[in-house]
Amino acid sequence: MARKTIVGIMGPGAGATGSDIANARKLGKLIAEKGWILLTGGANAGVMDAANCGAKQAGGLTIGIMPTSDPSKISKFVDIPIITDMKSARNNINVLSSDAVVACGIGAGTASETALAIKAGKSVVLLNDDENCKKFFLKIGKGNVQVAKNPEEAVNMVEKIIGKE
Amino acid sequence: MARKTIVGIMGPGAGATGSDIANARKLGKLIAEKGWILLTGGANAGVMDAANCGAKQAGGLTIGIMPTSDPSKISKFVDIPIITDMKSARNNINVLSSDAVVACGIGAGTASETALAIKAGKSVVLLNDDENCKKFFLKIGKGNVQVAKNPEEAVNMVEKIIGKE
Amino acid sequence: MARKTIVGIMGPGAGATGSDIANARKLGKLIAEKGWILLTGGANAGVMDAANCGAKQAGGLTIGIMPTSDPSKISKFVDIPIITDMKSARNNINVLSSDAVVACGIGAGTASETALAIKAGKSVVLLNDDENCKKFFLKIGKGNVQVAKNPEEAVNMVEKIIGKE
Amino acid sequence: MARKTIVGIMGPGAGATGSDIANARKLGKLIAEKGWILLTGGANAGVMDAANCGAKQAGGLTIGIMPTSDPSKISKFVDIPIITDMKSARNNINVLSSDAVVACGIGAGTASETALAIKAGKSVVLLNDDENCKKFFLKIGKGNVQVAKNPEEAVNMVEKIIGKE
Repeated sequence: MARKTIVGIMGPGAGATGSDIANARKLGKLIAEKGWILLTGGANAGVMDAANCGAKQAGGLTIGIMPTSDPSKISKFVDIPIITDMKSARNNINVLSSDAVVACGIGAGTASETALAIKAGKSVVLLNDDENCKKFFLKIGKGNVQVAKNPEEAVNMVEKIIGKE
Repeated sequence: MARKTIVGIMGPGAGATGSDIANARKLGKLIAEKGWILLTGGANAGVMDAANCGAKQAGGLTIGIMPTSDPSKISKFVDIPIITDMKSARNNINVLSSDAVVACGIGAGTASETALAIKAGKSVVLLNDDENCKKFFLKIGKGNVQVAKNPEEAVNMVEKIIGKE
Repeated sequence: MARKTIVGIMGPGAGATGSDIANARKLGKLIAEKGWILLTGGANAGVMDAANCGAKQAGGLTIGIMPTSDPSKISKFVDIPIITDMKSARNNINVLSSDAVVACGIGAGTASETALAIKAGKSVVLLNDDENCKKFFLKIGKGNVQVAKNPEEAVNMVEKIIGKE
Repeated sequence: MARKTIVGIMGPGAGATGSDIANARKLGKLIAEKGWILLTGGANAGVMDAANCGAKQAGGLTIGIMPTSDPSKISKFVDIPIITDMKSARNNINVLSSDAVVACGIGAGTASETALAIKAGKSVVLLNDDENCKKFFLKIGKGNVQVAKNPEEAVNMVEKIIGKE
């Protein structure tokens, strides 16, 4: 089997906080160091861009599942852009294609990806400081949702998820 | 312009509670009585089936945006099944095609639709009893999310949303 | 069962010929007169617009499966726009949602819909004057493709297809 | 820019001929030797499986855009499966994500991909022995379609297409 391990980082673009950006860069780096492929929504903004930047700095391989066909929207740290041109309907592809999902920060798009991951039976690690968000997704997550305090803990959780597959 | 008003009811299938089902049937009836077309995820289960049943009993027209091509999954109260065969990726079509969205009950699929609606700038009315859910979506909803106490209030809110368009 | 019969007309937008437009208007009218719902790609151009115009003039109900979320692109003769915002990926929804498909005229989009219909096991009626096109699709169509000489014959063929379901 | 060159090979699964399979294996090998990433529909059958096999034997990297979420359908020569779970609607993603497309063999799915590529303005190289097919796509292809006699010529054509971008 040629199949490689793919870890998805989902997170806000324009709405990302400084803390989200720093966490995303660290997550990208740690994922690349594990030898996993990084998958994001591919945009040249926020968590997506930062995660891809971190992964490339650590020599990783990066995939971006693009919502549009506009090449100017692709993060320059994406090796492999997959052009869906189907806007937010591509969020389901993001989570289905990831062996585990880290939701870094929160916004409407990231909330949809967290919910779609739960719906598909994928494991999700939440890394944000919104208590209602965490309580809500832990409740509907049926044991597939975990809360991490920092990127290192998130990656440890991902490692255990992948080991169980 | 031939274009008609379409109101979406999103809600759990197998996971719907008795209260969700009763609310969905009432919502479907009220929507049909207003002369609006009802749009749902189309399944023969839970909120979707009940809403379509309510709408048909009141003489309404019903559209189901189907996740699979299996005809046995279509609610018998759906007039017009749109066969996407793209599973949960169709959730984005559900909300984009609705002039306003009512989320009746809550689960992973409904949470994804609520989040996708917010992402697309659509107005959403929540009708459920999960306080964390409501607090979470009110916070990320940027003024496009309202909470209703019952189906009648939900439909009044929808009427105001549609009037503003 | 509430389910209604839906007939799809696929055809070029900007690339439609005068003959395609006239055929589409006639097809739309005949489909509406049969009491069937008309489904098209929904654009305010070419075969799509003409077919919807013909159907509305005969008092029919019309559905448009829209490739974008831009309301200015919707034919004014569409009653029910389904907003996919997924560009040509929506072509598969067009054919899966139709009980039978008429390809009126030919171009790249219409060729993709004809091929996707064949792939999905749907019956297709071709109405165009491109001999290579007809030979090609008859060959790969495995008995599901027919060639009509005019709109009346096309609708007769559709009627037999629907009768067999 | 991290972005890599991606070449798509589209072709039949179960319906592939012996010649299609041999051509696909050769194409996969030549694409990998050029240092390009191979993209296919990912199935463990026909042209897709053979192309991925050829690419892996030459040390290439392979992406499969999967129509279902069933892991047993993934070619064992695919490194990176992208799980769309949207059946033939994923055909549009196949062509949009490829810098150039080679259609190896012909059937309904491959015809849809050729047509979708033309619609999107992508360049397509045809490698099959169906004369009607070639005449038809050359006519609707508006200068973006070329016919190759063998895998070597197809890859030479792809190299020129990519050089022009």
